[in-house]
Amino acid sequence: MEGRPVPQPQGLDDLRVLVQQVLDEQQRRHREDLAPLGPQMASLTAPIDDLLRGGKRLRAAFCYWGYRAAGGPHGEGIVRLATAMEVFQAAALLHDDVMDRSDTRRGMPSAHRRLGGLHASEGWDGDSERFGDAGAILAGDLCLNWTDELFATSGLPSEELARGRRTFDLMRTQLMGGQYLDVLESVRPWEQLDTSERVDRARTVIRFKSAKYTIEQPLLIGAQSRGVDPQTDAALSAYGLALGEAFQLRDDLLGVFGDPAQTGKPAGDDLREGKRTVLVALALDRSTAADLDRFNTLFGREDLTGAEVDWLRDWCVRTGAVERVEQLIDEGAGRARAALDPLRLDPDGTRVLGELIEVCVARSA
Amino acid sequence: MEGRPVPQPQGLDDLRVLVQQVLDEQQRRHREDLAPLGPQMASLTAPIDDLLRGGKRLRAAFCYWGYRAAGGPHGEGIVRLATAMEVFQAAALLHDDVMDRSDTRRGMPSAHRRLGGLHASEGWDGDSERFGDAGAILAGDLCLNWTDELFATSGLPSEELARGRRTFDLMRTQLMGGQYLDVLESVRPWEQLDTSERVDRARTVIRFKSAKYTIEQPLLIGAQSRGVDPQTDAALSAYGLALGEAFQLRDDLLGVFGDPAQTGKPAGDDLREGKRTVLVALALDRSTAADLDRFNTLFGREDLTGAEVDWLRDWCVRTGAVERVEQLIDEGAGRARAALDPLRLDPDGTRVLGELIEVCVARSA
Repeated sequence: MEGRPVPQPQGLDDLRVLVQQVLDEQQRRHREDLAPLGPQMASLTAPIDDLLRGGKRLRAAFCYWGYRAAGGPHGEGIVRLATAMEVFQAAALLHDDVMDRSDTRRGMPSAHRRLGGLHASEGWDGDSERFGDAGAILAGDLCLNWTDELFATSGLPSEELARGRRTFDLMRTQLMGGQYLDVLESVRPWEQLDTSERVDRARTVIRFKSAKYTIEQPLLIGAQSRGVDPQTDAALSAYGLALGEAFQLRDDLLGVFGDPAQTGKPAGDDLREGKRTVLVALALDRSTAADLDRFNTLFGREDLTGAEVDWLRDWCVRTGAVERVEQLIDEGAGRARAALDPLRLDPDGTRVLGELIEVCVARSA
Repeated sequence: MEGRPVPQPQGLDDLRVLVQQVLDEQQRRHREDLAPLGPQMASLTAPIDDLLRGGKRLRAAFCYWGYRAAGGPHGEGIVRLATAMEVFQAAALLHDDVMDRSDTRRGMPSAHRRLGGLHASEGWDGDSERFGDAGAILAGDLCLNWTDELFATSGLPSEELARGRRTFDLMRTQLMGGQYLDVLESVRPWEQLDTSERVDRARTVIRFKSAKYTIEQPLLIGAQSRGVDPQTDAALSAYGLALGEAFQLRDDLLGVFGDPAQTGKPAGDDLREGKRTVLVALALDRSTAADLDRFNTLFGREDLTGAEVDWLRDWCVRTGAVERVEQLIDEGAGRARAALDPLRLDPDGTRVLGELIEVCVARSA
């Protein structure tokens, strides 16, 4: 990033600019690597470029500010390392959308739909959906490879990279496991479980499919790279897990109540998908027999009408489930604050990690 | 690998044993990393373990013997680095089978079929095929992550790793591009192309989908890690590309004529799949109008009878296509020998790289 003005980030917005600069540079290099294969490669890289242009950059922020909080200086290396977290997220989204058969992502057609659309509009042989899936699987594979490429070539000193690598490797293994757990929990029997079993299962999925790789592990990768003592490491882990769970519980509320204009997803998406969240587990806990009947008819149906979505939303509210989830979010934010407060870390890093608590739990998209 | 007898490999068989030891150790570690997610993770890792137990270990061999040829000593680090090539291959196979909807791999059900079968036999909710696809996508993702984990933690000196990394990164990017090219070429119009265009396209796919990541790039990663001068590098690249193309042309013949008991794939698999190979392009070149009619009726039909497969095989023979492909294989092997011969490398390494030429072109599986 030489030759450009690179102010030391004071917060999330200026880091976001730096992350995008790294991504643009990296993607330019990757297009060069693919150039010998011909111009058709552009149809594979374009959806990746677009996906990498959006997002809140939370994962990069936790990694970057973890490093800074641990006393690390601002520099190109840590920005590049932090950016690797965003490329990993893109990989996860690309494959998740194939597995979930999602039509949209951030208000745009998902990559597999876009590639399927290309196949259809070109009138190519074979099945458009199958082509789209194959392209999106490969796009996700590229992003997985590029995650590690950016990590390893970030330019951080090799002893720092070596310190962060174990958590980096664990993050990648455990996210794939968490995704598998999510798929499993969506198909394994749920009816005969009691509420606490349902909540436990949903929380385990949240932990491994979201909390760890969104917050805890990027934060630890940053902090461990710089070096932290075991007590600080444990406190940052506690902050990350508590906040990560709260983040995902907010996501679950947005999946039901979010404004499509802000979330980029259709209204009530999680209800149509039949996502077995903590919210739904808690609503079922206080349902009447009539509620249960109606729920069983509606939940997971892709063709829900607006009125049916409204009924399910109202049911979440009047059973008290929304309130209970909001409480869990508050508790998570509180635990994150309690873990952070006693730490004696770099003041700028500590300040931004504090701000990130609000960003994660009070968001609308 | 301490405490075990580890003879310095003299050839392919003893290297294969060492590679399997590394894989077993790694998989044990990975199962530990996934243990916090619960016992269900075994259904995700079992197909990976099985896939990692088979195979010819050619990619590991080229990487290992490239390092040895460049004067590197035998040691655990280079065996681990070489083993990363096998994990990468497993990732490619897992995703390839999802994209191709292949039922079998090495004579066993492919991972997505196996996981789909688990879903069906457990009577879980939803669609078994979709569950199988999701599981196999995630299994492939794990193998991609583990490829890099093994590369980076191989234990080779960091300056050696840094020298090999550029080709390692290029290999991973270009294989995904090559896979996409393969998918594209299977759906883009083929009818109006002339023979040389068809052969060119099929050879480009071969180059990027097979030759580079099977032979050229693993070999260069090994040799470059140890350090080679630019002339030697170029000669090894020439050896690898020529032999890699010959390898894949042999594969194309086996895809049509191979014995299912040896290839682990159904007879005439590539004919049912409608794979647009150099072999088919050359057979079309010398076809009568009646041949073309029959070809168009049969090629790419999944329900081909044994007699129909036999007709297509006979057509490949009597049009001279088989003979021409055998010539191309001979030429490739010759170019590989010619590139290797003048090099003054370690004698053991040179000997095995010479033996590998025969292994690649004269195989029956």
